[in-house]
Amino acid sequence: MTLDDFSHYARTRVDDYLTQNLTTYEPAQHLQDAMSYSVFNGGKRVRPMLTYAAAGLFGEANSLTDASAAAIESIHAYSLIHDDLPAMDDDDLRRGKPTCHIQYDEATAILAGDALQTFAFELLSQVKHDNPSRQIQLIQELVYASGRHGMVTGQMIDLANVGVQIDIRALEQMHQHKTGALIRASIRMGAISTGATKADDFAALDAYAAAIGLAFQVQDDIIDITSDTATLGKTQFSDEDANKPTYPKLLGLEGAQALAASLHKQAISAISPFGSAAQPLVELANYIIGRNH
Amino acid sequence: MTLDDFSHYARTRVDDYLTQNLTTYEPAQHLQDAMSYSVFNGGKRVRPMLTYAAAGLFGEANSLTDASAAAIESIHAYSLIHDDLPAMDDDDLRRGKPTCHIQYDEATAILAGDALQTFAFELLSQVKHDNPSRQIQLIQELVYASGRHGMVTGQMIDLANVGVQIDIRALEQMHQHKTGALIRASIRMGAISTGATKADDFAALDAYAAAIGLAFQVQDDIIDITSDTATLGKTQFSDEDANKPTYPKLLGLEGAQALAASLHKQAISAISPFGSAAQPLVELANYIIGRNH
Repeated sequence: MTLDDFSHYARTRVDDYLTQNLTTYEPAQHLQDAMSYSVFNGGKRVRPMLTYAAAGLFGEANSLTDASAAAIESIHAYSLIHDDLPAMDDDDLRRGKPTCHIQYDEATAILAGDALQTFAFELLSQVKHDNPSRQIQLIQELVYASGRHGMVTGQMIDLANVGVQIDIRALEQMHQHKTGALIRASIRMGAISTGATKADDFAALDAYAAAIGLAFQVQDDIIDITSDTATLGKTQFSDEDANKPTYPKLLGLEGAQALAASLHKQAISAISPFGSAAQPLVELANYIIGRNH
Repeated sequence: MTLDDFSHYARTRVDDYLTQNLTTYEPAQHLQDAMSYSVFNGGKRVRPMLTYAAAGLFGEANSLTDASAAAIESIHAYSLIHDDLPAMDDDDLRRGKPTCHIQYDEATAILAGDALQTFAFELLSQVKHDNPSRQIQLIQELVYASGRHGMVTGQMIDLANVGVQIDIRALEQMHQHKTGALIRASIRMGAISTGATKADDFAALDAYAAAIGLAFQVQDDIIDITSDTATLGKTQFSDEDANKPTYPKLLGLEGAQALAASLHKQAISAISPFGSAAQPLVELANYIIGRNH
């Protein structure tokens, strides 16, 4: 399967699952419109791809895999809505479209984000499956990645760092929380959904996740200064403008590119024990480094 | 046990559990300060009281009961933080103290609310217990009460109704979602935590919950026009000012008081099958009608 085929497979599967489960509830119509607007906004579904790729190492993707992929994407969508708010990053444009609070209003955007977080736990708790312990384990993974131990704290650190001189270790700590934790959970939850239990397997996947998670961010910073607004779908130099610390600022452009290449190698090496079954994860690592938007 | 004793028991127990579980995580220090500020803000802990009272009908309160009470209080605290934001109700004062976005800032308040929602699911998924199916059931109850089927949709309807003429049925639908759903879940989760399974028992508890949930809101509206700012800890007539629909507006003050009394009777009658074991629930219904702040 090529990466395009795999991307199509994962995207179709998670989008279908999200559509089926975001069922109509009449009193919530307006809220659900805003939720759908943000969940189906043309995102690349990188995290669901990672979930299905990791699941494939241990068995065939099942309803827990679908629920995991959809739940992670709901959390990701909620975080983008809240990050874009005027009190946070104050962004009007996301992937070439108005952000949620511009398309609707600020109150609706706050509530749509809130409801998308709950929806993630709805998906994981209501999936029909005969292994409640595994369901609990998946919920724990998502909680750990998205709450005070992960994503929300990453955003808090990010906001505290605007206009502040920080070193590369502090930048890494921010990214590990803000984006790394959810990428790691995408992979771990995929593996758990099809029955992974061995500590060695999780250690290999965690090493892969840490490398691509950071590579993703370094590449994002590189793209932000080498691409243009039309390709990005957001305002070029938006991070530069906000005086945010970035890898090119700390390491220079070439230094940042060298770091991305080194992380790419680490990622491939970490999953080599899985052999050819890890091909989708290898291709995803290639994609993350190769992408230009 | 008098209501004062029972209140002290429930408050101590849920506060201890929240304190023990909101463990220090160094990178999240600032965020957790804001979370603690809002969770420990002198709230009356009515929902935890309901949880422990309902649990007592079916067995002795256990770790699932504690996790339920603490999770509900975390959801309640998150909803108050977000409701108070400038884009929502824009309140500076809550129980006589600055609201979260005044005490900290708006971004911190949004993130503290987000993290408190995740914390609720952290509590329910990480509690040590040998019945994962019951844990999943509790998570489902909380999801249903707090997300798009419940609280968030209630707030959405509430915002849509400001300055709008609505009838009593529409006002009831708003309150059922905004506050009723979580009160119902407080009671159901307490019952589930100690092993309730019978449809008849849940039906009786749901009837009680519906009556006191609505009574609570009617009484709130009455207090808003009969009490003064010092007793309330919020600005008197704050709902009147905002042109929000209230029961006294729709029914007159005497009509609203008659409705509260009728709902009180319904609540007591619904739980009469439980006999003397339901005494704490009876006293809580009395308290909800009798309170003046």
